[in-house]
Amino acid sequence: MKKKKMISTDILIIGAGPTGLFAVFEAGLLKLKCHIIDALPQPGGQLAELYPKKPIFDIPGFPSVLAGDLVTNLMEQIKQFQPGFTLNEKAETIERQEDGTFIVTTNKGTQHHAKAVAIAGGLGSFEPRKPIIEDLEFYEDKGVEYFVKDPELFRDKRIVIAGGGDSALDWSIFLADVAKEVTLVHRRNEFRGALDSVEKVQELKKQGKINLITPAEVTGIRGAEHVEELDIEQDGGHRTIKTDYFIPLFGLSPKLGAIANWGLEIEKNAIKVNNALDYQTNIEGIYAIGDVNTYPGKLKLILCGFHEATLMCQSVYNKLNPGKKYVLKYTTVSGVDGFDGTRKEAEKQVVKAIE
Amino acid sequence: MKKKKMISTDILIIGAGPTGLFAVFEAGLLKLKCHIIDALPQPGGQLAELYPKKPIFDIPGFPSVLAGDLVTNLMEQIKQFQPGFTLNEKAETIERQEDGTFIVTTNKGTQHHAKAVAIAGGLGSFEPRKPIIEDLEFYEDKGVEYFVKDPELFRDKRIVIAGGGDSALDWSIFLADVAKEVTLVHRRNEFRGALDSVEKVQELKKQGKINLITPAEVTGIRGAEHVEELDIEQDGGHRTIKTDYFIPLFGLSPKLGAIANWGLEIEKNAIKVNNALDYQTNIEGIYAIGDVNTYPGKLKLILCGFHEATLMCQSVYNKLNPGKKYVLKYTTVSGVDGFDGTRKEAEKQVVKAIE
Ligand SMILES: Cc1cc2nc3c(=O)[nH]c(=O)nc-3n(C[C@H](O)[C@H](O)[C@H](O)COP(=O)(O)OP(=O)(O)OC[C@H]3O[C@@H](n4cnc5c(N)ncnc54)[C@H](O)[C@@H]3O)c2cc1C
Ligand SMILES: Cc1cc2nc3c(=O)[nH]c(=O)nc-3n(C[C@H](O)[C@H](O)[C@H](O)COP(=O)(O)OP(=O)(O)OC[C@H]3O[C@@H](n4cnc5c(N)ncnc54)[C@H](O)[C@@H]3O)c2cc1C
Repeated sequence: MKKKKMISTDILIIGAGPTGLFAVFEAGLLKLKCHIIDALPQPGGQLAELYPKKPIFDIPGFPSVLAGDLVTNLMEQIKQFQPGFTLNEKAETIERQEDGTFIVTTNKGTQHHAKAVAIAGGLGSFEPRKPIIEDLEFYEDKGVEYFVKDPELFRDKRIVIAGGGDSALDWSIFLADVAKEVTLVHRRNEFRGALDSVEKVQELKKQGKINLITPAEVTGIRGAEHVEELDIEQDGGHRTIKTDYFIPLFGLSPKLGAIANWGLEIEKNAIKVNNALDYQTNIEGIYAIGDVNTYPGKLKLILCGFHEATLMCQSVYNKLNPGKKYVLKYTTVSGVDGFDGTRKEAEKQVVKAIE
Repeated sequence: MKKKKMISTDILIIGAGPTGLFAVFEAGLLKLKCHIIDALPQPGGQLAELYPKKPIFDIPGFPSVLAGDLVTNLMEQIKQFQPGFTLNEKAETIERQEDGTFIVTTNKGTQHHAKAVAIAGGLGSFEPRKPIIEDLEFYEDKGVEYFVKDPELFRDKRIVIAGGGDSALDWSIFLADVAKEVTLVHRRNEFRGALDSVEKVQELKKQGKINLITPAEVTGIRGAEHVEELDIEQDGGHRTIKTDYFIPLFGLSPKLGAIANWGLEIEKNAIKVNNALDYQTNIEGIYAIGDVNTYPGKLKLILCGFHEATLMCQSVYNKLNPGKKYVLKYTTVSGVDGFDGTRKEAEKQVVKAIE
């Protein structure tokens, strides 16, 4: 394997959910650079992955906001601070250096060097629920995909999607225009999802654009070096179907995973922090913010993650600038200087005579 | 004085700034009623009083939001929980009842009975900076006004406004269309405010709609039972001017005021709280949230007030429902039931067969 370049940053954030994203903003105000690792292909955490089209009612100042829009807004808010992203990779190991900095390495070998680490891992990294099929692992990245990371991969290919929820419905609809042939396999005749998604699939089926096999299950995969054929059991009967890709979309289940072995105090699958001060863990320089942490009175809410991220950044700032007296600056009064050279500020007052 | 009816509520909130307003929402989710007292004539705290037209850049999810708009949004968000308001009055005394509830009385004698009290008083109640003029206090409510609570009071009257900042400029502009005669007096020729306000005053002056006297100072008030005439010193010269109202707008200075004598632990003009748990003060049942509180690492930011308000409500809920196991409900999943009979919820998923 080619040795990858080490990514360097002030605060390494693990998890691109709302908490991790907003931390970039607060760090930026303090002139600290951030880099974010996320196991998912896109930022937004639970909001983007689990309920992008659903409204949230308890974000302060938004009587209602779609989860996906909140993520878009947060990305817009932090853009000026140019965070780096390592997506599609899981933070797996951490090594504390002699100088108190850290090196975090992902499952794909990407290394990150940071002055402080903020774990904003939510409920953990989302792992796809996998069907129980012999040799499934062998075909991973050889025709078996658990996420649609890049729809273009499927252009003019034959694909089989399995599942009965929103993801299965929505990707079947989307890929009907991209792939050569879309087959949707589900254990039941009933699908569970947004009404318009279910109706759209119904329509595409009538138009012959989606091939529906229910109630049925994929039970076997064949192919030399790549998926070529699937076995499908339908109502006691058996059939095989030729395909280039098999995409089981059975939902995701979050796993704290390797982070659980980093020597952090864990309580009920969450990381204990010093809530009375700065949401730091038992290891100096490692913080845990948002859903992933626990403390007396903890509420797993988005707005709490925002507060925790803010105090964490403040604490890192104080640590990196010992002795420097910090004076809180209001964004309204002092403006915001983006790392990209932009400046946002309130309209200036004038001092002007009236004749 | 006629004895007023006692106002009853679950949580009495002192201060209608962003923190107090959002507390109404979080309390509402837990089915707790709130009533808010504020010394100012309108809700919004510092945002409404000091910088309504300025953008804030660090509210999570808003790349930029005008302070006034944030207040409007918060009012919209809490409407469904029908908070009561006692505006224009200052919370002055508190009495703890034997059953652990509280009675809070304002400077105007309005009494409030509550199961818990949340002080969200910001920097304190805003007191107008008063000019030093003999007998000024005698004329208060008899022609001397420090706020424009209801512009209609001045319809077809003669008014004199004193001051050189945004409030003086903006109210002169606004009242030029309401009052019979508007005179603006300022110590200097230069005004300090938004460019368009200064230009607008310039224009109204040219049109003869605002009568400008600078550099000048109001030095005396005369009148039997009500303001009738003011003394004005201009450039060494002296003149008198007939008027119905004198409105000195020299800004506000916040004062913790009577709350400082409630037996709460005070540190640097702020109330010490148990930040490690629920932002409760040294007196059980009295909480302090937002700018008014202090704890190690405290940041006087709007987003921190939101978090503190949320944990406070949770703590009150637990206290009022001992033994009841609280299960956090996501607004997205459980919807929001307003006290006004409304219900907000995400679109329901359907379970539907595709034929
Ligand atoms: C259906 C539903 C409705 C909800 N409704 C509301 C609501 O109305 N209001 C509200 O406040 N909250 C709501 N929530 C909860 C809210 O979504 C969470 O509080 C919020 O997402 C937490 O944000 P976070 O950034 O801490 O973590 P998350 O959003 O969980 O993001 C964590 C990210 O970290 C990544 N990650 C974890 N471990 C690793 C690793 N080792 N390497 C790389 N990446 C990793 C994950 O892939 C994930 O993207 C709801 C949740 C659900 C599921
Ligand atoms: C010019 C300026 C720019 C700012 N910019 C930002 C920014 O960009 N980002 C940010 O996060 N923050 C900013 N702030 C700070 C922000 O406004 C405060 O953090 C916020 O207003 C605190 O909200 P609060 O609800 O706790 O208190 P406040 O907004 O101060 O409201 C407290 C209310 O309580 C009332 N009150 C107090 N005592 C009593 C009493 N005894 N009886 C009745 N009423 C009482 C007061 O009249 C007041 O209305 C700025 C502040 C200023 C002045």
